[in-house]
Amino acid sequence: MNDFILHNPTKIIFGKTAMQKIVEHLKPYGAKVLLTYGGGSIKKNGIYEKIIQQLAGFTVQEFSGIEPNPRIETLRKGIEIARAFQPDIILAVGGGSVIDGSKLIAAATYYNGDAWDIVTNPDLNPSKYIPLATVLTLAATGSEMNRGAVISKWETHEKPAFGRNELYPVFSICDPQNLYSVPKDQTAYGIVDAYSHVLEQYINTTLDAPIQDRFSEGILLTLIENALTAIQEPTNYTARANVMFSATMALNNLIGVGVNQDWATHQIEHEFSAFYDIPHGAGLAIITPRWMEVVKDYKTAKFIQYGKRVWGISGDDEDIIANAIQKTYDFFASLGIKMSLKEWGIDNAHFPEMIQRLAGKAGKEKPLTAHEIQTILNNCL
Amino acid sequence: MNDFILHNPTKIIFGKTAMQKIVEHLKPYGAKVLLTYGGGSIKKNGIYEKIIQQLAGFTVQEFSGIEPNPRIETLRKGIEIARAFQPDIILAVGGGSVIDGSKLIAAATYYNGDAWDIVTNPDLNPSKYIPLATVLTLAATGSEMNRGAVISKWETHEKPAFGRNELYPVFSICDPQNLYSVPKDQTAYGIVDAYSHVLEQYINTTLDAPIQDRFSEGILLTLIENALTAIQEPTNYTARANVMFSATMALNNLIGVGVNQDWATHQIEHEFSAFYDIPHGAGLAIITPRWMEVVKDYKTAKFIQYGKRVWGISGDDEDIIANAIQKTYDFFASLGIKMSLKEWGIDNAHFPEMIQRLAGKAGKEKPLTAHEIQTILNNCL
Repeated sequence: MNDFILHNPTKIIFGKTAMQKIVEHLKPYGAKVLLTYGGGSIKKNGIYEKIIQQLAGFTVQEFSGIEPNPRIETLRKGIEIARAFQPDIILAVGGGSVIDGSKLIAAATYYNGDAWDIVTNPDLNPSKYIPLATVLTLAATGSEMNRGAVISKWETHEKPAFGRNELYPVFSICDPQNLYSVPKDQTAYGIVDAYSHVLEQYINTTLDAPIQDRFSEGILLTLIENALTAIQEPTNYTARANVMFSATMALNNLIGVGVNQDWATHQIEHEFSAFYDIPHGAGLAIITPRWMEVVKDYKTAKFIQYGKRVWGISGDDEDIIANAIQKTYDFFASLGIKMSLKEWGIDNAHFPEMIQRLAGKAGKEKPLTAHEIQTILNNCL
Repeated sequence: MNDFILHNPTKIIFGKTAMQKIVEHLKPYGAKVLLTYGGGSIKKNGIYEKIIQQLAGFTVQEFSGIEPNPRIETLRKGIEIARAFQPDIILAVGGGSVIDGSKLIAAATYYNGDAWDIVTNPDLNPSKYIPLATVLTLAATGSEMNRGAVISKWETHEKPAFGRNELYPVFSICDPQNLYSVPKDQTAYGIVDAYSHVLEQYINTTLDAPIQDRFSEGILLTLIENALTAIQEPTNYTARANVMFSATMALNNLIGVGVNQDWATHQIEHEFSAFYDIPHGAGLAIITPRWMEVVKDYKTAKFIQYGKRVWGISGDDEDIIANAIQKTYDFFASLGIKMSLKEWGIDNAHFPEMIQRLAGKAGKEKPLTAHEIQTILNNCL
C-alpha cells in the first residue's frame, strides 16, 4: 500500500428528508446565497420551487445556464455576477457540470485575473474561496463530495481537470427522489461515469490494498445490481438511492487512497467531448472496453480479480480476462448506450490531433504510447 | 436505506512516512502541546523518542498513565493538568484507551463541573473543546477517526460510551510500523474489536443498503485474511497496514450510515470489563458467537449473506447460519484467544446484576430480554 492522506470534510445529507434541511445547514455561512443551476430542468421538476421556498429568509442572486461540459466562456459571466454580489455561499443545484462550474466560480471570484489561470495552474490560489454547497440532481461525477472539477474551453477544444482542497463542498443535499425525473439516457451515462471512476482507481498493479479493492468491487456490484432498475423504474427509491450513494463513494478520495490510479479512459474521453460534445458517460462506455484490451497484459492480476469477484467468472486466466472485458461491454450496452463512435456520427478526422495530445500522457500507471492510443481509438469507431 | 448524515472531518495520515509529518500538521494549532500517553510502552519501543525529537519547537506538557479501559479517576488528574497548562492541542499517543481518555480531557477541561457529567449527559457542552490529534499505536477501536470514547468508573462498575462531534481528532498519524512491537495477544484483541465493530453495524435487518454491506464484508474479509500474519509476523508491513486500515474503517461513521445498528455485544462486554477488567477484545470474542445464536432467528437474511459472502459457505439456510457462527468462533479461537469466561477465572456471581442492567437495553434493533441475556451469559461461562 502506498502512503496516503485520507481526508474529506464534506458533509453528505442523504435521504428522503434531506431537502428539508437546506436552511439549517446553509444558515451558519451567512445570508447572501448565489444560487447556480443549469438549463432550467429544475424549474420543470419542482426542485427549484422547493429550494426557493426555503430560501425566503436569504438574499438570493441567481446564475443559471451552466451547460453540460461547463465552459469557461459561460463561467466568466457567473464570476462577474459573484464579484458584484459577494455571496457568503454558493448553492449549486444540479449534476456534475453545474457543481464543477460552480467550483470555478467559488475559486475565481477573489482571484485577481482570468479564471482559466486557476484551471491550468495548480499553484495559483485566490485570496479567498467562497464556500460551496450543493443540491445534487444527477448521480454521476461525485463532484458533490470531492475537490475536483472539469472545465471546457470550447474555442481551443481543451477540457482540463483542476482541483483545490478548498473546493470540497461544505455540504451536499443528496435526496434520491431528486433523481426521479432524470431521463433514461442520462441515468445510464451517470452509472457509466461512476463505474469508470471506480475502474480508474481499481484496475491497477497495486495488489496489497484489499480494503480499497473490496470497497471498489462493492461499488461496481451495487451499480450492476441497481442500474437496470434505476433506468426502467425511475421512481424506485432503493435503486436510485443505491446508485446515488455509489456515485458519491466512487470518487471521494476513499477507494483511491494508497493505490496507483490510472485515469487514461477519462483523459481519452475528455478529448472526445472537447471535440464533439458527446455526453461524458457515453464516451466512457465506448472507450473503457477498448482501453481494457490494451492494458490487460500488464494489469493482469487485477483483471483476473475483477472477473472473479465482480462478474463471478471462473476458468483459466485468459478466459477470465476476455470474459470480464466482454461482460463490461455487455453491461454498458444493456443500459441502452451506443457502443461505437459511428453511432454518434463521429469519424477518425480528429484522431491524429487527439493522439498527439494524449501519447505518453494518458494513463498514470504506465502512459499509453501513440500506437496504443491509435489502437484504442480505431476500435472505438 | 435510512436517511443519514455522512461526515468525518478527521485527516488520516497513513503510511511509512507518517511519523515525519507530525510537526507540519501540528503547527497550525499552536505551540503548546499536551502530550498524553499510557503506561510507558512508547518509551520502550522508541515512539516516544521519535515524537519528542519532533516537538523540539513546541512547549510540551506530559500526562501519562492513562490505563486500559481508562478511568474517570485517572482522567480527572489529566484534566487538572490541562486546566493549568491550557494547551493549544492535545497529542494522544497510544491505542483506543489513551485516545478515549484524551477525548474526555479535550471535552472537560473547559467544562465548569465534574468530567463525569460530560460522559453521562450528552446535552452538556463545555465552553470550548481542545483540538485533539493522535499518534495511533494499536489497531482496534477506531477512536483515531471517530467522535466517541468509552470511560470507566471503577468505583461503581460503570463503563458508558460518550461522544461529541467536536471530538473527531483533527488528524491522526497512522504508521503501521508503530504496531510492530504490539504483543500477539493485544494484536488479536484489536482484530476482534474491529471485527465486532463491523458486525454491530452489519448484522441487521436492513436489506437495501448494499454499499454499506459490501464495505462491511470487505473489512471482515481483510481482517480474516491478514489476522494470522499480523500476529505471527509482527513486522510484516502489509499485514499490519491492512489490519490498521481495517480497524479505522470499521468505526468511522461510514459502514454504519443508513442502516440499523445493534451494539448488544459491546454493551454486554462493557459490563464484563466494568466488573473484571478483562481486555475488551477478549470479552467480545467470547460473547459474539453466543449473541449470534440468540439473534439469528430474526436477523436471518443477513446471517445467510454473511455466511455466503464472508465465509464462502453454501448449503441450505440453516446450515449456512450454523456454519457461519461456528466459523466466527473458530476464527477468534485461531488467534489464540480464550473462548470462555472460565479460562479468565470468571464465574456467574455478577450475572444477576449484569442482567438487571442490560435487560431491555442491550441491542438497538430489538433489545434483548432478561432471558436472552441470561442465555448468552450462561453460554459464555
